[in-house]
Amino acid sequence: MQIVVLDGYAMNPGDLNWTPLQQLGDCTIYERTSANLVIERSRNSEIVVTNKVVLSKDIIERLPALKYIGVAATGYNVVDTEAARQANIVVANVPAYSTMSVAQMVFAHILNLTHHVAQHAESVQSGKWAASPDFCYWDFPLVELDGLTLGIIGLGRIGRAVADIALAFGMNVIYTDSAQNHPDDRRLQ
Amino acid sequence: MQIVVLDGYAMNPGDLNWTPLQQLGDCTIYERTSANLVIERSRNSEIVVTNKVVLSKDIIERLPALKYIGVAATGYNVVDTEAARQANIVVANVPAYSTMSVAQMVFAHILNLTHHVAQHAESVQSGKWAASPDFCYWDFPLVELDGLTLGIIGLGRIGRAVADIALAFGMNVIYTDSAQNHPDDRRLQ
Repeated sequence: MQIVVLDGYAMNPGDLNWTPLQQLGDCTIYERTSANLVIERSRNSEIVVTNKVVLSKDIIERLPALKYIGVAATGYNVVDTEAARQANIVVANVPAYSTMSVAQMVFAHILNLTHHVAQHAESVQSGKWAASPDFCYWDFPLVELDGLTLGIIGLGRIGRAVADIALAFGMNVIYTDSAQNHPDDRRLQ
Repeated sequence: MQIVVLDGYAMNPGDLNWTPLQQLGDCTIYERTSANLVIERSRNSEIVVTNKVVLSKDIIERLPALKYIGVAATGYNVVDTEAARQANIVVANVPAYSTMSVAQMVFAHILNLTHHVAQHAESVQSGKWAASPDFCYWDFPLVELDGLTLGIIGLGRIGRAVADIALAFGMNVIYTDSAQNHPDDRRLQ
């Protein structure tokens, strides 16, 4: 079985192990693949793995050996799924792999705005705290999250994870959700 | 009634309102007071408020009008409480005013270490993402907290608030506590 990974660098810049995939067959991993090389590199493969390389109707129709497209991402807009269906090609994505990491990123940004940790550390190292006449020194007024209100648009998996973290910080959480998710949690308004 | 605030700047650098205190009596607010000025400034006061100015046995014994020392902080090590007791002076501190804000600061630091938001923003603005051949660009490998273990030494109010936030991030929490707090929460080990 021939397997090709078209843009492996996006998935694995060096910290992951390809061995389990390589054990499945004759596996070729390209770090990046430009659009004009997709057909040449995928020609005899039964499995193609992509992260951001586009597999259009035109490309899919020119890959008769293809049986499986693995999208190593949540969004599968890079694949023409209707063309794949007509060619009996299975398309798989990875839903929800990033729920906690995106929720964490949200608070990394919020806390960067409330505390400016990196800039504060720089200003302390440049001697500003040592030169301050006061025990407490800061460049920016600190913003306390406890008691503030966070609004979430979209209470899917990520929205709910963000809400849980916000509640632990003492925040009030309000939300709106077009999918009409109504969690059984009175702490959410 | 005479009231003196010895180091008001430490409590109120400009964002708080002294009016309620001023309505209690003849109130003088100094931004800072050096050790050699404490007795002169407090001589006739029944109430002295301090944040970091030391009120030693020697000073307390030389302030016969004094009836109340307000420590605008949690730790009251700046006051000789035994000397105050012998002079029938009430000493009050402010326990737990900062629980949520310290817990928030803990995660501001953790997330600065895991995400380097400020440095990343700078590197993007300097054009490094635009010049990157990949959709995903980062200078530092990101560290996901979900599934990692946080150890807490001291499960008092702040430790417990930190534990709650850590659990919301998906972390495992272990702790040790000399006061033998054993919370009824199986998520803590």
